[in-house]
Amino acid sequence: MSSYTDLDWKCINTIRVLAVDATSTANSGHPGAPMGLAPAAHVLWQKFMNFNPKNPKFLNRDRFVLSNGHGCMLHYALLHLYGYDLSIDDLKHFRQVGSKTPGHPEAHDTPGIEVTTGPLGQGVSNAVGIAIAQAQAGATFNKPGFDILNSYTYVILGDGCLQEGVASEAASLAGHLQLGNLICIYDDNHITIDGDTAVSFTEDVLARFEAYGWHTQWVKDGDNNLEGFEEAIRNAKAVTDKPSIIKLTTIIGFGSKLQGTHSVHGSPLKADDAKQVKERFGFDPNKSFDVAPEVYEACKKTAEKGAKVEEEWNVLFAKYKEQYSLEASEIIRRYEKRLPEGWQTSLPVYSSTDAAVASRKLSETVLGKIINTLPELIGGSADLTGSNLTIWKGAVDFQPPSSKIGDYTGRYIRYGVREHGMGAIMNGIAAYGLHIPYGGTFLNFVSYGAGAVRLSALSQHQVIWVATHDSIGLGEDGPTHQPIETVAHLRAIPNLQVWRPADGNETSAAYYVALTSHHTPSVMCLSRQNLPQLENSTVEHAIKGGYVVHEDKEAAITIVSTGSEVGICVDAIKTLAGEGIKARVVSLPCWEVFDTQDKEYRLSVLPDGIPILSVEVYSTLGWEKYSHEQFGLNRFGASGPYKDIYKKFEFTPEGVAKRAKATIDFWKGVTPIRSPLNRAFTQLI
Amino acid sequence: MSSYTDLDWKCINTIRVLAVDATSTANSGHPGAPMGLAPAAHVLWQKFMNFNPKNPKFLNRDRFVLSNGHGCMLHYALLHLYGYDLSIDDLKHFRQVGSKTPGHPEAHDTPGIEVTTGPLGQGVSNAVGIAIAQAQAGATFNKPGFDILNSYTYVILGDGCLQEGVASEAASLAGHLQLGNLICIYDDNHITIDGDTAVSFTEDVLARFEAYGWHTQWVKDGDNNLEGFEEAIRNAKAVTDKPSIIKLTTIIGFGSKLQGTHSVHGSPLKADDAKQVKERFGFDPNKSFDVAPEVYEACKKTAEKGAKVEEEWNVLFAKYKEQYSLEASEIIRRYEKRLPEGWQTSLPVYSSTDAAVASRKLSETVLGKIINTLPELIGGSADLTGSNLTIWKGAVDFQPPSSKIGDYTGRYIRYGVREHGMGAIMNGIAAYGLHIPYGGTFLNFVSYGAGAVRLSALSQHQVIWVATHDSIGLGEDGPTHQPIETVAHLRAIPNLQVWRPADGNETSAAYYVALTSHHTPSVMCLSRQNLPQLENSTVEHAIKGGYVVHEDKEAAITIVSTGSEVGICVDAIKTLAGEGIKARVVSLPCWEVFDTQDKEYRLSVLPDGIPILSVEVYSTLGWEKYSHEQFGLNRFGASGPYKDIYKKFEFTPEGVAKRAKATIDFWKGVTPIRSPLNRAFTQLI
Repeated sequence: MSSYTDLDWKCINTIRVLAVDATSTANSGHPGAPMGLAPAAHVLWQKFMNFNPKNPKFLNRDRFVLSNGHGCMLHYALLHLYGYDLSIDDLKHFRQVGSKTPGHPEAHDTPGIEVTTGPLGQGVSNAVGIAIAQAQAGATFNKPGFDILNSYTYVILGDGCLQEGVASEAASLAGHLQLGNLICIYDDNHITIDGDTAVSFTEDVLARFEAYGWHTQWVKDGDNNLEGFEEAIRNAKAVTDKPSIIKLTTIIGFGSKLQGTHSVHGSPLKADDAKQVKERFGFDPNKSFDVAPEVYEACKKTAEKGAKVEEEWNVLFAKYKEQYSLEASEIIRRYEKRLPEGWQTSLPVYSSTDAAVASRKLSETVLGKIINTLPELIGGSADLTGSNLTIWKGAVDFQPPSSKIGDYTGRYIRYGVREHGMGAIMNGIAAYGLHIPYGGTFLNFVSYGAGAVRLSALSQHQVIWVATHDSIGLGEDGPTHQPIETVAHLRAIPNLQVWRPADGNETSAAYYVALTSHHTPSVMCLSRQNLPQLENSTVEHAIKGGYVVHEDKEAAITIVSTGSEVGICVDAIKTLAGEGIKARVVSLPCWEVFDTQDKEYRLSVLPDGIPILSVEVYSTLGWEKYSHEQFGLNRFGASGPYKDIYKKFEFTPEGVAKRAKATIDFWKGVTPIRSPLNRAFTQLI
Repeated sequence: MSSYTDLDWKCINTIRVLAVDATSTANSGHPGAPMGLAPAAHVLWQKFMNFNPKNPKFLNRDRFVLSNGHGCMLHYALLHLYGYDLSIDDLKHFRQVGSKTPGHPEAHDTPGIEVTTGPLGQGVSNAVGIAIAQAQAGATFNKPGFDILNSYTYVILGDGCLQEGVASEAASLAGHLQLGNLICIYDDNHITIDGDTAVSFTEDVLARFEAYGWHTQWVKDGDNNLEGFEEAIRNAKAVTDKPSIIKLTTIIGFGSKLQGTHSVHGSPLKADDAKQVKERFGFDPNKSFDVAPEVYEACKKTAEKGAKVEEEWNVLFAKYKEQYSLEASEIIRRYEKRLPEGWQTSLPVYSSTDAAVASRKLSETVLGKIINTLPELIGGSADLTGSNLTIWKGAVDFQPPSSKIGDYTGRYIRYGVREHGMGAIMNGIAAYGLHIPYGGTFLNFVSYGAGAVRLSALSQHQVIWVATHDSIGLGEDGPTHQPIETVAHLRAIPNLQVWRPADGNETSAAYYVALTSHHTPSVMCLSRQNLPQLENSTVEHAIKGGYVVHEDKEAAITIVSTGSEVGICVDAIKTLAGEGIKARVVSLPCWEVFDTQDKEYRLSVLPDGIPILSVEVYSTLGWEKYSHEQFGLNRFGASGPYKDIYKKFEFTPEGVAKRAKATIDFWKGVTPIRSPLNRAFTQLI
């Protein structure tokens, strides 16, 4: 006999009908997935999920990720029914400007949304990150009798997510890491936008996940068999040393006349079909957004159970605090995103007489100095540890204990050659709420993770990419590895700080700003080759994003540069001086931070009156924002020792001086010469 | 008894020693993979590969792809030994500026390199594309008794390639497509840069590939068992309806004192180790780049066999030409990259009285008109066919015949939700040499394929991305789907044409230039919303990349724009006229093509004397190159009906007019006002 009642089905059908109503009202959206997934979501939220709608940020809540984010009306309906701060009016404004119910769920817009999804493959990969963060925090803070951090992460994902490479990367790693706290429900509905999955996706998904080391199950009648699905979740929870995937065969758009076809995937139902759905499920076909009181009541009861779970947890945590006050205050500190007082005194500082050092090495030094002060830092690399220099002395690998090569308290993640997966996993780690993740790769291969980087910025995740081998300066590996367009790409992403430090103090400054910017991701562009310590460089100067390295009140030109080219520009001053030309040099390690300084300061760095030449071994795209003329590399690089390549492309003091002179000559006779910082109007933000 | 002799082992060890010598001389590079893979490569090249070093472009050659491109000394050594145009001096200049032996193999630099590899995961994914192209061409052109196109593609790949999501995407599709002409050799050496694969890669690779539908085998002693490997290749060739992967367990750096460790992966051997290797393999430890005459002789024999294979093929093709002259001349035409005469007359043209149409729809019309004229076009979409409008009436799916939903003559590929895989596969299709591939996705998700797009440009593959839903104009799907930074990113990639047509004629022009640019990839940025046909728009104007849409000799300002915003700027003229201000409007659908016009023309479009305002709903990054002031969107978008979003961000005639007036005011008093096209110096190319 079924333990599920008519009321359960009424709750389920309410979700379906709300999805129909919201998409019809918006005349846009995806009704099919919510209609097919309502039974599973109901079972999950009623029977398994620990959550408190009154406190969506309850630390030990179970996390729910809808990786097929286009089906967000499923999630919005649940959030509304269970009493999150999402009203029926919010549902009525689905997909409207300014609403809390955008076309795809966004973590910073809507209470109860853990991570922004929609770009396929991201959500499930984020979930791997959440599960890693949970496992790491649990292993770090749980004590005998105090299982305070033991939440699960539940994911719903579709065929599209499973086809995306980013999800494959993350799933392979999740299997390796034996993340028993991760349970995925695969909506096997046989439909993608192009029609039947038979046209492109005929692999055996469960066999693939078994190969990754996952626990797999198949529930064949996801539309009706609530008990079977419930049992599958119980089984999944019982397996503690493997992530689980449950293949749940469903009919997309269940209840529609067009159910089981791709017509219900991405368009609202036709009016008569919507009416028919309501009648079929016992709803008044003439009413919209109509929720029965007993449905609210049932959801409220579950929500109250959730509130009680949090209360009990609070009691447990209070006891924990008595016994483990240090650990408890550490949890609170990290939850509140406060860094330990005085942490920044660990940052190394340099004087201009110190030796030239590669900025990847300077980054290693920073990490080594701060890693013990900032236990929230959780590092890693996409299989380039020895090149990115992302590890520290005494680091413990985050590994399953049975591997004997690390354990779950470890703070160093071996991501494998999986840049996109790493980016998405870092977003998940940040979303869990107790960590600041950083991950290393070559700058050129940050592009592999572009989809995840963009979502870091959109979702305001504090994630740090340690992007070494940042230019043609990497030398022999050649054009396939030498970034040209990468930094222009990253600089064009809103809410992303791109740092390209020129020396030790700038590197410390970059980390200082990145670590104190809790809602902004950062990319550190770091050199393979040694860089001299600059004369006027200090952490205080560099945290402004740009400053004067060499001042000369009689200068005929300002040369503005970043990273490895700043030192070359400083040397170019001498070349120019030999011809009686005086020049200023400006270092601009981070555009985005420099842009936030007041205009007076910015104009003191890049003043009116003399022309400005930019020098950077990348695409010049965007440099016109700060300069009148641009010296860069609008072509692919070359394979060879880096000094030969710099010479080939004339990034030498002489090459810079030549262009500085051309710039001065060219701008003679223009009056006034205005700094490009002066604009006719300001951009909308 | 072994069929292999001491001479075979001498050939194998020569490859190993050449890799040691080249990396030692360069003091840089990866000796480990060549040393471990030399036996497999020898068997493959001696016993299986059809190739003619004197004609590396022989159409029916077997293709060899070294997906772990860092091991390129393996390939360079083979190319040298077998008599390709790669001298021993070229090997001595390994990884030097200007050499034919860059740090990673580049297709357009080195004869015999099929595709540029190094960025992991790309090569094997390219190989899937080559295999698709081969199967499609074979099914199209082979006739009874004339199996003229029947080559195999052999791939060597390592753990790194297998961890990359792009390879997972391509492998899943290859299994679905049952590509029996694809044989992959997985170098199972248990080592990546971070050390043992146990740290991050413990999945069961063969089980995963079985799940994809591949034929799998394991050769356990790849260092010694030449016969076993040979048998595995024979088995793989016997399976005609599945791609094959052979797991070949090897010892990385075989012969080195440090063999089997990651120390031999990415650094030259120490001098004493290099000496020891030579002694061990019976070489004079005091000689470098020393190849025994009998080794050259053995390779020469094989090369001569290959030349004979080509001769025989030429005879067969001559007979084929007699019997199937149309098909034969078609093959030749496509091989020589000549388009059919007069094909361009199929391109639709529009007048300004024609209806407003979305440019994705205009693109659909172009494709529909040219698809039968250009049989080399092979289309597809990453599961967004109905949104990208990439299919045509009567299209046949490229599918395995057993699927009954298409066959191998099909020219429409269902890529699934696999953008990165699609990009890499398109590179492979282009590399095969008889096709021009295009593939659809949303513009925002071209970023998922950034790694492949970059390689299209670097390798000069003619690949076309049909990138619809090109801005906030997509509306309700919201910020997760609305490109902001994407076009800046693409514009910063050298040798990539980014088109954003404003109307029908510009769309035709975009396709005209893309299809006649045989060494340049293109991205078509296409709107979801309708766009009016412009007054002064013609195909002839638009193929220049930029032209004047509205001229006014008394204008106080030039407004330059692209795509969906050009029409808004045209409307803004009326708003400005109401206030007595005259303005010019310029459309700049393709920067890269505009940049190739002579300066006189460019200055006639964007002249000196009056200020220039750019208008585009993307990041403004880079627009300073063509304008004095920029109106754009340096933030993420919003979810809602597109007209509401355009209004919210003031992309309306009034919003443009307001900024035009601010621009005019701001530039009063500056003399001279020079067009930004005037530069102090030219960039190096």
